[in-house]
Amino acid sequence: MQEFSIIDTFFKQQSHQRKDVLLGIGDDAALTLVPAGQALVTTTDTLLAGVHFLASADPCIIARKAVAVNLSDLAAMGAEPAWISLSISMPVADDTWLTAFASGIAEMTQFYSIQLIGGDTVQGPLAVTITAQGFVPPEQALLRSKAKPGDLVYVTGTLGDAGLGLDILLAKTTVKDEDNTQYLLSRLHNPTPRLFVGTSLRRIANACIDLSDGLSSDIRHILKASSCGAIIHVDKLPLSKAMRESIDPQKAVDYALSAGDDYELLFTVSEEQKGKLEIAMANTNVPITCIGQLNGMSNKLELRLNNNVIDYQTTGYQHF
Amino acid sequence: MQEFSIIDTFFKQQSHQRKDVLLGIGDDAALTLVPAGQALVTTTDTLLAGVHFLASADPCIIARKAVAVNLSDLAAMGAEPAWISLSISMPVADDTWLTAFASGIAEMTQFYSIQLIGGDTVQGPLAVTITAQGFVPPEQALLRSKAKPGDLVYVTGTLGDAGLGLDILLAKTTVKDEDNTQYLLSRLHNPTPRLFVGTSLRRIANACIDLSDGLSSDIRHILKASSCGAIIHVDKLPLSKAMRESIDPQKAVDYALSAGDDYELLFTVSEEQKGKLEIAMANTNVPITCIGQLNGMSNKLELRLNNNVIDYQTTGYQHF
Repeated sequence: MQEFSIIDTFFKQQSHQRKDVLLGIGDDAALTLVPAGQALVTTTDTLLAGVHFLASADPCIIARKAVAVNLSDLAAMGAEPAWISLSISMPVADDTWLTAFASGIAEMTQFYSIQLIGGDTVQGPLAVTITAQGFVPPEQALLRSKAKPGDLVYVTGTLGDAGLGLDILLAKTTVKDEDNTQYLLSRLHNPTPRLFVGTSLRRIANACIDLSDGLSSDIRHILKASSCGAIIHVDKLPLSKAMRESIDPQKAVDYALSAGDDYELLFTVSEEQKGKLEIAMANTNVPITCIGQLNGMSNKLELRLNNNVIDYQTTGYQHF
Repeated sequence: MQEFSIIDTFFKQQSHQRKDVLLGIGDDAALTLVPAGQALVTTTDTLLAGVHFLASADPCIIARKAVAVNLSDLAAMGAEPAWISLSISMPVADDTWLTAFASGIAEMTQFYSIQLIGGDTVQGPLAVTITAQGFVPPEQALLRSKAKPGDLVYVTGTLGDAGLGLDILLAKTTVKDEDNTQYLLSRLHNPTPRLFVGTSLRRIANACIDLSDGLSSDIRHILKASSCGAIIHVDKLPLSKAMRESIDPQKAVDYALSAGDDYELLFTVSEEQKGKLEIAMANTNVPITCIGQLNGMSNKLELRLNNNVIDYQTTGYQHF
């Protein structure tokens, strides 16, 4: 089966269709229209079998996650998603695998009203690269570099669930309660890109990032880009009921600080904007938690437990 | 070394910088501005070690080719290139390899005045995925679907050189003359995206495609999308001096028809536009050759030698 047939057969018809796509799959490139007054936002992420997912994983889950992690990057910019391009490397063109994978892609395009506009397939080790594109008014984009000393530091949702889910999947740990197990695995497999939170934070947050490698690692990008320090209260890190019921508090904090794959947003807001933030967030139905505050100590991350400084060595997920 | 360090260290500083990039490498996503009145053009292509290049290949050559094949897709749309995103999968973070690879990327960004706006690195089998973005006025984009019966069929440059170059590289054949060998290898390693030809064909060509899988395979995309047939005169296929001096005429035609990796443009022009085409092409300094004509025989590709129909079985490069 040839490259163009794979994309045509499995992906072209199923995708959600958008009016701003003049030409989607099936030519040398796609043609799309960016609305006037909006900047184009582009991000790309690769998921590789054996690194980001097990080669035996449900193809539908791989597809959903590959889309979600890219949309999460758009969410962290305050952007609205529009289009995705897909490159699949796979050992053999397996119809069953492709059908399931394509259903996951189709599901995501429908749910987020985005369109798959192009693709490439090559024969090789199982890997999926997605490039996601969206828009944001340029002056409202959420950057890593605009945080200010004094800003309050918030995160969405709960932290560490995906990390604990991964350890369950790899049989490194067991969780007795079946509902909790399922919840933690679903947090690993189906991360929720916080797109509505992202767009709601325009004109409210000073800086934003998504938590892909782990809080203690990812927050450093903001500290570095904004020349700030941060005091984070580890006893304030939001933990899910499943996490709290499954392991002891210290281990839970480890997951919340260091495990990757949460795809929650971490953002900073000046104290003056706090009221506006609370109103905006009430509409999103996503819980947020204030976990600390920025200061002028460039690049210094201080962790506190019950307001006492703790020594904690952690670096988040290492890519090499 | 962490992902963000690799992109920052090896790629960020070296790229050509464009004024329409509000935010490049270093945040969750890039922010760019598409000029008013222009459609965004997006394409993505993966090059994999062992399939598209040898794992031992010069990293600078891999980089240049990965950019070139994507720019070639933009050229085939009549688009002007603007930005590229890069995802690299590599077994180990090898400084020497990355330095050479980054120099190839930097060279291409300088030469084509494009900017590298984002990247992702993962640990895995050697592979490079590039997404290229550019612009074209939407009504002037060159599509596969707008060819008309009666259109003359043209190609740029010469055909088959990269295929013969690959067989030299793989020691499947030898070419005595050293200059010819070098020329054929350079055509394999450094394909020239025909960007200036592409933009010059706006408002002149009816349809266009780039030749990546082989003429006899790629032309079928136009025939299918436009519901046309074509008569192609194989004795008119443009062959380089190196090709003609190196192998017998029939083999040369085989390469020209079936070998991939040429990245020349194939386009169709109505007879009325022929004069305008010749004037426009004289400015590009790229030779073009009329190799045949379209007709109303939907999907039928007829090959002729000295105007006699020949039977020729060929399918171009198969992806699986």
